Amino acid sequence: MLDFTFSNTTKIIFGRGVEEQVGKEAAVWGKKVLLHYGGGHIVKSVLKGRVVASLQEAGLEIVELGGAQPNPRLSLVKEGIELARKERIDLILAVGGGSAIDSAKAIAMGVPYEGDVWDFYAGKAKLKESLPIGVVLTIPAAGSESSPSTVITNEDGLQKVGFGSILLRPKFALMNPELTFSLPAYQTACGVADMMAHIMERYFTREPDVGFGDHMCEAALRSIIQEAPKAIAEPENYGPRANIMWAGTFAHNDILGVGRSEDWASHNIEHQLSALYDIAHGAGLAIVFPAWMKYVYKQDVNRFVQFAVRVFNVEQDFHNPERTVLEGIRRLEDFFHRIGLPTTLAEAGIAPDRLAEMADMATAGDTVTLGSFMPLAKEDVLAIYELSKG
Amino acid sequence: MLDFTFSNTTKIIFGRGVEEQVGKEAAVWGKKVLLHYGGGHIVKSVLKGRVVASLQEAGLEIVELGGAQPNPRLSLVKEGIELARKERIDLILAVGGGSAIDSAKAIAMGVPYEGDVWDFYAGKAKLKESLPIGVVLTIPAAGSESSPSTVITNEDGLQKVGFGSILLRPKFALMNPELTFSLPAYQTACGVADMMAHIMERYFTREPDVGFGDHMCEAALRSIIQEAPKAIAEPENYGPRANIMWAGTFAHNDILGVGRSEDWASHNIEHQLSALYDIAHGAGLAIVFPAWMKYVYKQDVNRFVQFAVRVFNVEQDFHNPERTVLEGIRRLEDFFHRIGLPTTLAEAGIAPDRLAEMADMATAGDTVTLGSFMPLAKEDVLAIYELSKG
Repeated sequence: MLDFTFSNTTKIIFGRGVEEQVGKEAAVWGKKVLLHYGGGHIVKSVLKGRVVASLQEAGLEIVELGGAQPNPRLSLVKEGIELARKERIDLILAVGGGSAIDSAKAIAMGVPYEGDVWDFYAGKAKLKESLPIGVVLTIPAAGSESSPSTVITNEDGLQKVGFGSILLRPKFALMNPELTFSLPAYQTACGVADMMAHIMERYFTREPDVGFGDHMCEAALRSIIQEAPKAIAEPENYGPRANIMWAGTFAHNDILGVGRSEDWASHNIEHQLSALYDIAHGAGLAIVFPAWMKYVYKQDVNRFVQFAVRVFNVEQDFHNPERTVLEGIRRLEDFFHRIGLPTTLAEAGIAPDRLAEMADMATAGDTVTLGSFMPLAKEDVLAIYELSKG
Repeated sequence: MLDFTFSNTTKIIFGRGVEEQVGKEAAVWGKKVLLHYGGGHIVKSVLKGRVVASLQEAGLEIVELGGAQPNPRLSLVKEGIELARKERIDLILAVGGGSAIDSAKAIAMGVPYEGDVWDFYAGKAKLKESLPIGVVLTIPAAGSESSPSTVITNEDGLQKVGFGSILLRPKFALMNPELTFSLPAYQTACGVADMMAHIMERYFTREPDVGFGDHMCEAALRSIIQEAPKAIAEPENYGPRANIMWAGTFAHNDILGVGRSEDWASHNIEHQLSALYDIAHGAGLAIVFPAWMKYVYKQDVNRFVQFAVRVFNVEQDFHNPERTVLEGIRRLEDFFHRIGLPTTLAEAGIAPDRLAEMADMATAGDTVTLGSFMPLAKEDVLAIYELSKG
């Protein structure tokens, strides 16, 4: 087990109607709020009105910035930074899912920074301060509501890059599972694939003596596998929606990754897909992850046997470990299919004509390797894209 | 799933040699430290010298208060409060296990309170402020290093009572598994029983739709069951010691209890045992918990079947659920025996001649019931003590 430091300071307020506490929680952090949200759903829903009313009741001034979209864009972030500076904003409040939250984080760290906020994503600057961030969560998926990370797409070259700092953990997150009742099945499924990927990026490690973390990751996956079909079949059933929503936070608040070297190659490989094509991040992960598994499992067959047996109840073939491994991967693909996701580029309608370009982008022209379970050079990434063609 | 609020602000610094960071972490909270610890082990070990050196190097003034003992006493707490007031202490630093930490918490909340600190435990006062608390952990068991709770014994009548407030979460906890290499097997086992009990008090709930939490609790138990015998057989093997140490924190930092009604009857029933007899809390729990299970399982047979199957891999008897339940309880007793703990009063050498007195104390003369899985009156508690005789 690796040495680690962990704390999770985000105040999670979870349950029915908790969005009505947003004014009270926001007022702790200042007097003027930048209310940041995405597209049609929030604007049309009664949620926005409820949030605004609660903020006003708490005596807060509100400045609005809508327009956050999946794979949130740097241009909107820059617009937000200008606006927040001009309006002397105290708190960035994201109402939405990972896109609105990641965008809010980028704005929050950009405001006190004199240079270009992209410097943080490009690894050219170290974060020293940030405005506080609050969240009203509407989509369980990214885990950004209590994570230290943010992913932004720079339209200049369509680079999708992540950045993390504990300064970016939201101060509070209001999580009402009822707000997810109206999420369409496909979007629910994409969120499920995203949270599973967050767990698997941590689970597949070469670090020994991480038995406790292994069990916790496996349990989280098993539970998601059990709850997700229920949440999709009965979208207004509070129990499965609540379990999925909490799982999404747990999956990415770092507690499942402590003491382990994490991988994150699959996320990087996926980022190129959703930067170039109109595909949801979660659907991209359902395509990339099984291919990544098939490519890397020989590095540690035992860990993949453990995954198959403990997560998917595969009857272990003691004489043929690889058969057990491949059955585990097959069941992961089956699960993704069951909840309505593609597991190949073909199923997603993506022509395999830009694979080399994506492999080149993912590895910055073959100058960096991805992941730690098996460090992947450009040719490895290309092979994984090839395996994902279907 | 119940509504909940959760945050865990304790900064966990985990790994080899981390106790040497104590000066740096303590200096964040002030200039003068009350160094609180227990008996012989800490004093004799090199640890105390290392902690003192680190504090001095950081320019901190140190006032010492030793003498914390298992089932920490109110009289020492009061002595600590006087001392901390007189010396104008900024931070209470506990070096040790649950006893030193719980005692440190009681001192920390007593200092700014004008009345008798026992008022908090007696439910007569609400906590509004506390001095900050820091921890160097040497015994994985109580989970007090990041929990909001403290248990103190009032020598006047030998009442052992708990109190909790998020103000009591330690600000930082330094956790070096190497410091646990010298823990004797019996003490290691008692710690293991304590952390398992912390999980089981949360696991056995009547709250529906808590599937994610169920899976996480079961995984934590499975992992502890797997790691504990290794930690006992190879006391200087870092991996199992690290997994057990982290499990103890995870078991009691509240993340496994969110959204559930928790029980805690067994803890209350045990508290009478360790208040009256010279028995470690963990050993007492290994006696009480199986008896409690046998008494209450009929309230929700399915949950106990799930426990047996998922935690102890019992081959389910689909035609006789009770047989499955009882086999699960038997395997829990087997496990406690395997790590060297008693599971009956007889095995612990305790004569069953004060059971009625303990049942009376636990229920405050039959004026309160214990637990929520099955609310227990005095006669129920007595029946559980009877079942624990052996």
